[in-house]
Amino acid sequence: MTAFKPTPRSRIKRLPKRAHYERETVHAVLDAALIAHIGYVIDGAPYVTPTAFWRAGDTLYWHGSSASRMLRTLGEGVPACVAVTHFDGFVLARSGFHHSINYRSVTAFGVAYKVEDKVEAEAALDAFMAKFAPGRWAEARPPTPKELKGTTVLRMEIDEAAAKIRTGPPIDDEADYALPVWAGVLPVRMVFGALEPDPRLNPGTVVPGYLKDLAPGTALDEALKRIAGRAKP
Amino acid sequence: MTAFKPTPRSRIKRLPKRAHYERETVHAVLDAALIAHIGYVIDGAPYVTPTAFWRAGDTLYWHGSSASRMLRTLGEGVPACVAVTHFDGFVLARSGFHHSINYRSVTAFGVAYKVEDKVEAEAALDAFMAKFAPGRWAEARPPTPKELKGTTVLRMEIDEAAAKIRTGPPIDDEADYALPVWAGVLPVRMVFGALEPDPRLNPGTVVPGYLKDLAPGTALDEALKRIAGRAKP
Repeated sequence: MTAFKPTPRSRIKRLPKRAHYERETVHAVLDAALIAHIGYVIDGAPYVTPTAFWRAGDTLYWHGSSASRMLRTLGEGVPACVAVTHFDGFVLARSGFHHSINYRSVTAFGVAYKVEDKVEAEAALDAFMAKFAPGRWAEARPPTPKELKGTTVLRMEIDEAAAKIRTGPPIDDEADYALPVWAGVLPVRMVFGALEPDPRLNPGTVVPGYLKDLAPGTALDEALKRIAGRAKP
Repeated sequence: MTAFKPTPRSRIKRLPKRAHYERETVHAVLDAALIAHIGYVIDGAPYVTPTAFWRAGDTLYWHGSSASRMLRTLGEGVPACVAVTHFDGFVLARSGFHHSINYRSVTAFGVAYKVEDKVEAEAALDAFMAKFAPGRWAEARPPTPKELKGTTVLRMEIDEAAAKIRTGPPIDDEADYALPVWAGVLPVRMVFGALEPDPRLNPGTVVPGYLKDLAPGTALDEALKRIAGRAKP
């Protein structure tokens, strides 16, 4: 796969050694996450909305109520900045200055439009659910025409994108390695907890197979990556 | 504590029953998180940058290299939108339409300025480290004048803010409860992993006591809340 071509808008100026523009890297960071933060401008002022999203090729999708301000604003075709961030750990250095964070992030720029085609919109909703629960769309009660009308799906072709990644131990000033200060990484990760069945669940309803991939303690990013790998061989 | 007064900018229009404007609720969501997404506008275009942040009263702080585009832009005093999101779980309903996400989020609006006062800037960096490792600032090698000059601290008074929170099981259409579809919540949470000592750690360096609060498997939000509770009684 080729790389995104950075412009002044997306080129990472600070710590360029952490920057990645290859599609493979950008896609991997996106596919391992469920939540994105969408930035947009209304009357010159900045807004950021967190939302679940999914990806197909270089297109990002997200959805919500047709009544939401974000979706009404973006649906008309306005520039958006989509940020996806995995916080991977605290980096504890021997000096205050060299403390850091391990992370994987992507910033993607494009113009968001409402998906007007009903068939594309419903296929996108199916693909969204398949991101974490492949097969569930066909099990669940299908959407009514009224529900589909009340749901806006947005699509944004990625015009440009950059990933920024930090991994590994602290990098201290050479003289500081002699200090008696504990240094290293305190990792954090998103994991699944135990399923909480709906109190009104019909007795005898079986737990579907796709939830077995998401067993308690499993890392969310690893599970989403595995599912994406099976869906997009 | 009083509540933030919503205006059209911050009032939650979609699903207002999930909206909270009380300071206590907004502060609790902020204090339980380390990463915020900062939205701002340059030449009319939206940008979103993820960064670590901390709070004192109604003031949010974040920091970074004095060379970064975000900090140079915001330091001049420009409107910012700060979003903090905890993703708490997948809500699996019996219909595609009623699927949802459990989450706690805050959107805060204000104007960000560079902290010019050196004493306030260094105190803010100390407070930042105390958010997850109280006492560490005094253990680590203090910043040099050059390091302090290379670090920009920003402050943003919250002009207005809203929290949006969803918890609990799916809410299905009454007729759908009879369907043989598994329904419930698949929780997710951020937890600490096991400490990874720096490969160059001096043998015999002891693990500091504040890291015991952050033992493997402990939830990040709960730990940060506990630490904030001790710091701000």
